[in-house]
Amino acid sequence: MRLSDSGEFGLIGRIRQICGQPGERVIAGIGDDGALLSTKPGYASILTTDSMVEGVHFDLRYVPLRSLGWKLLAVSLSDVASMGGTPVGCVVSIAIPETWSMENIEALYEGISRCGRDYGCPVVGGDIVKSPGLCYVSCAVLGEVPLGAEIRRSGANEGDLLCVTGQFGGARVGFEALESGSKDSDEFYESINRFLEPTPRLQEIQSILHVFRPTSLIDVSDGLASEIRHICEESNLGCLIHEDKIPIHPEAVKWAGMTGKAPICYAMESGEEYELLFTVDSHEFVSQNMRDLPKRAGAVAVIGLMRKKEDGIQIQSGESRFPMKYQGWDHFRRCPHD
Amino acid sequence: MRLSDSGEFGLIGRIRQICGQPGERVIAGIGDDGALLSTKPGYASILTTDSMVEGVHFDLRYVPLRSLGWKLLAVSLSDVASMGGTPVGCVVSIAIPETWSMENIEALYEGISRCGRDYGCPVVGGDIVKSPGLCYVSCAVLGEVPLGAEIRRSGANEGDLLCVTGQFGGARVGFEALESGSKDSDEFYESINRFLEPTPRLQEIQSILHVFRPTSLIDVSDGLASEIRHICEESNLGCLIHEDKIPIHPEAVKWAGMTGKAPICYAMESGEEYELLFTVDSHEFVSQNMRDLPKRAGAVAVIGLMRKKEDGIQIQSGESRFPMKYQGWDHFRRCPHD
Repeated sequence: MRLSDSGEFGLIGRIRQICGQPGERVIAGIGDDGALLSTKPGYASILTTDSMVEGVHFDLRYVPLRSLGWKLLAVSLSDVASMGGTPVGCVVSIAIPETWSMENIEALYEGISRCGRDYGCPVVGGDIVKSPGLCYVSCAVLGEVPLGAEIRRSGANEGDLLCVTGQFGGARVGFEALESGSKDSDEFYESINRFLEPTPRLQEIQSILHVFRPTSLIDVSDGLASEIRHICEESNLGCLIHEDKIPIHPEAVKWAGMTGKAPICYAMESGEEYELLFTVDSHEFVSQNMRDLPKRAGAVAVIGLMRKKEDGIQIQSGESRFPMKYQGWDHFRRCPHD
Repeated sequence: MRLSDSGEFGLIGRIRQICGQPGERVIAGIGDDGALLSTKPGYASILTTDSMVEGVHFDLRYVPLRSLGWKLLAVSLSDVASMGGTPVGCVVSIAIPETWSMENIEALYEGISRCGRDYGCPVVGGDIVKSPGLCYVSCAVLGEVPLGAEIRRSGANEGDLLCVTGQFGGARVGFEALESGSKDSDEFYESINRFLEPTPRLQEIQSILHVFRPTSLIDVSDGLASEIRHICEESNLGCLIHEDKIPIHPEAVKWAGMTGKAPICYAMESGEEYELLFTVDSHEFVSQNMRDLPKRAGAVAVIGLMRKKEDGIQIQSGESRFPMKYQGWDHFRRCPHD
């Protein structure tokens, strides 16, 4: 079977089968944002990894190596955030073309190290090998979470509110602006920065946890639409999304005006946003004063309601209601909208 | 500066500088086999990662994907063994050519998973991305060790005995036999197996720890000569190696007879052996009955004596004594003997 026929998620299911039962110390294994391992009384360890490949995830013609380093660590830290955890340390594996200079590698590590300092995740080791071709970078982060406080993708209940942090679409706009060599890059500065150096929402989730406890949580790496599907599948539910409640980044609205696409497409399909998507019990949510959310949690918006699985995933747009067709970014399948 | 001018170890020093002080939870950071992190009362977490690149570390024309999977995990497990620890779980990152079939990936994961089952290290997550070129695989292992029982590279003292598990040279012979497409592969079966599916010495170090406690420990990934240098550098010592005490794999002697190289070159420079090199206090060693070592610890051989730094690293060969010139395998510098 060709990979492009099965898709990334069919593949993950097969790998889960091959790897079998992981044993009693594994609280959550293959399939969540990170793994949860029972290692410390009262705490679970989080182990997560992400890798990026030149020509697939980044183009060194317009991605500075410092930003690549930042992003490499930030995307794994986002996985730690999406389980309600905090980071402990990370290891970095890089395969670099032999033609690279010492300055190239220094710039890469300066970016990783700067991100690590900002979020309390020191680089504690790693591996450097040569690559006969392109550059590959990979990072694994160890994090921890008080046992019982970990949040999974699968905990949503019917009637829960579906919420997000931040605004969507910017990361995709940043990518398109950089790739097109747009002369208006000053106008799209925030988007470009979101794409190059995303913010892992580690502080935001801790602030949210002070006010209420999400029932399920995921970070938006493959696109909002794709992550909504994940939460629904893992929690065995459907949902109704209110399209007009989805916070769209103002630069995405502006950029969409130039490309002729609908701004909502950017918001729903833009990958690499690294905002948080979560569900919360509606009674708990309403009984809390949202002003209790510290400012650094950023704006939290309610975008929909969790429903029965049979109701499917639907979009309410004005007076009409239809099944959600937006796709996320799948490494092995072309997005139908591209 | 070009990478090939600084070498891998100059580079690691520079990265250590860039990454700065890692904070109080980091007991051992960049520069040891794995990182030690204070996470659990009475225990330290070990975090380690290794990656392998097609065309550099493996050639899919003669390395079966099941063996590649096994080796990927085994080399990180060897790092856990070399700190005196036991594994908890691992995450795997792979970048695969789009032309790969599902069966290819299944074979790779079957190998990883088989190694994980044999050594109590379940695959708990990971990341799969496409590669526009070659195959790149990376694995990060979380392990643990009782606090105070961890063994570092830097603990050797003057007068300590220098010891190894197992026999050396086979992994290199296996590599050369496979690469040359030797028709005598049956004769070099053990060597080929050592190269394709190395044994992480997790059980051996636990058996050794029941009898005595090494003062320093490292696994032989870059070659025996190179690891001897590491122990000396990190412990700020020199040593005297008795060449005739170094256990050479019988297949390496046979193969050397065909290639015209000295068997000792294979033993000293062969990388990817994944045996253990360690030092032990001579009084402690002599006072123990070596027959107490359970059989599964394999043969332990004393190969030398730790001395003052000023004495350098010397080889005693018959009546003559000379500075050790054997090199290890450095990704960025050609071995002068190749």
